[in-house]
Amino acid sequence: MDLYFSPLACSLASRIALYEAGLPVNYIRVKDKKTPEGNDYFAINARGQVPALKLDDGELLTENVAVLEYIADLKPEAALAPKGQERVRMRKWLGFINSEIHVANMGAILSSTTPEPVKAYALERARKALAHVDKAMEGRQWLTESFTVADAYLAVATNWLQATPIQLSDYPNLQAHQKRVFARPAAAKAVTEEFALYRAAA
Amino acid sequence: MDLYFSPLACSLASRIALYEAGLPVNYIRVKDKKTPEGNDYFAINARGQVPALKLDDGELLTENVAVLEYIADLKPEAALAPKGQERVRMRKWLGFINSEIHVANMGAILSSTTPEPVKAYALERARKALAHVDKAMEGRQWLTESFTVADAYLAVATNWLQATPIQLSDYPNLQAHQKRVFARPAAAKAVTEEFALYRAAA
Repeated sequence: MDLYFSPLACSLASRIALYEAGLPVNYIRVKDKKTPEGNDYFAINARGQVPALKLDDGELLTENVAVLEYIADLKPEAALAPKGQERVRMRKWLGFINSEIHVANMGAILSSTTPEPVKAYALERARKALAHVDKAMEGRQWLTESFTVADAYLAVATNWLQATPIQLSDYPNLQAHQKRVFARPAAAKAVTEEFALYRAAA
Repeated sequence: MDLYFSPLACSLASRIALYEAGLPVNYIRVKDKKTPEGNDYFAINARGQVPALKLDDGELLTENVAVLEYIADLKPEAALAPKGQERVRMRKWLGFINSEIHVANMGAILSSTTPEPVKAYALERARKALAHVDKAMEGRQWLTESFTVADAYLAVATNWLQATPIQLSDYPNLQAHQKRVFARPAAAKAVTEEFALYRAAA
């Protein structure tokens, strides 16, 4: 399989999940919408987004929430997605992080081309969404009973805050959660590697 | 079970799924963030959003994508969510409709309190997201091989366009898809009932 990624983007959650699962894939970096060979990434993925996971049969799987649950189900023994009602709760958090935190708000805040009034609006809404998860995390280790791909996604999203005016320390439960995720060997390896790639590019 | 809903909101997709599955639940209308008994809906659901599905054990399940897949899995014989790789594709579309169409853009467009520059930005992005699905639907009946809860969600989302400057007819495949969904007896019943409730409230 090939994972199209960009350093520290939401595709980092997929890399964490793949390392957690011990699944080897080819990591293909997308930069300025080009592959390392200079091919147009839009010709591979019409939306131009990462992550995109090219399966061995050639199918290109997109949408972070779908990719993450897919990776988890490739290696059930890694227990990256629980069973039964806990799976439903994991999907609830995946959906919330994806829509209310990432795509609706963090995406607009992090983009250099977003008009200022849109950024201000997104900042206000992002703060409310973060406060909601922070409150839900009170007294908890993970979003569900055990670590799942939703925790990987949440830590990747809160990691973006350092590039925004929002202080992670305003959300102590999210700060502790991020630290907990990045203390896991697989997640630590993934974030360290992508941070190095990100810095080298900057 | 109790489904908290608001007429023609994204909770309509849950009603369609419940009718398709033949699952009886209590429908509790949320209006101005109050229940019919005048109770504060924020005390029930801290985010104030619909749908919220109160399960028989008292757990409140939120997030449209999680609620829809949960309903589908309650009644496998209704075939509202496929198995195997088709399930992964269904989740891809649920995630895309939820994040890129609904929460990031249609939500801002439909709200009366959204500042104008934010609406303009959301309109442009909504058009791109709709065009992407319209293209993907070329020559197809449904988002996946058979009708799923993702189709219900897409038809509910494209139904909102009549309250926006976006013309559904600019997306002929989405227009045909919506007609196909609303021609299904369960979906027709659901949308007719909620349209009547919506009109009575207006």
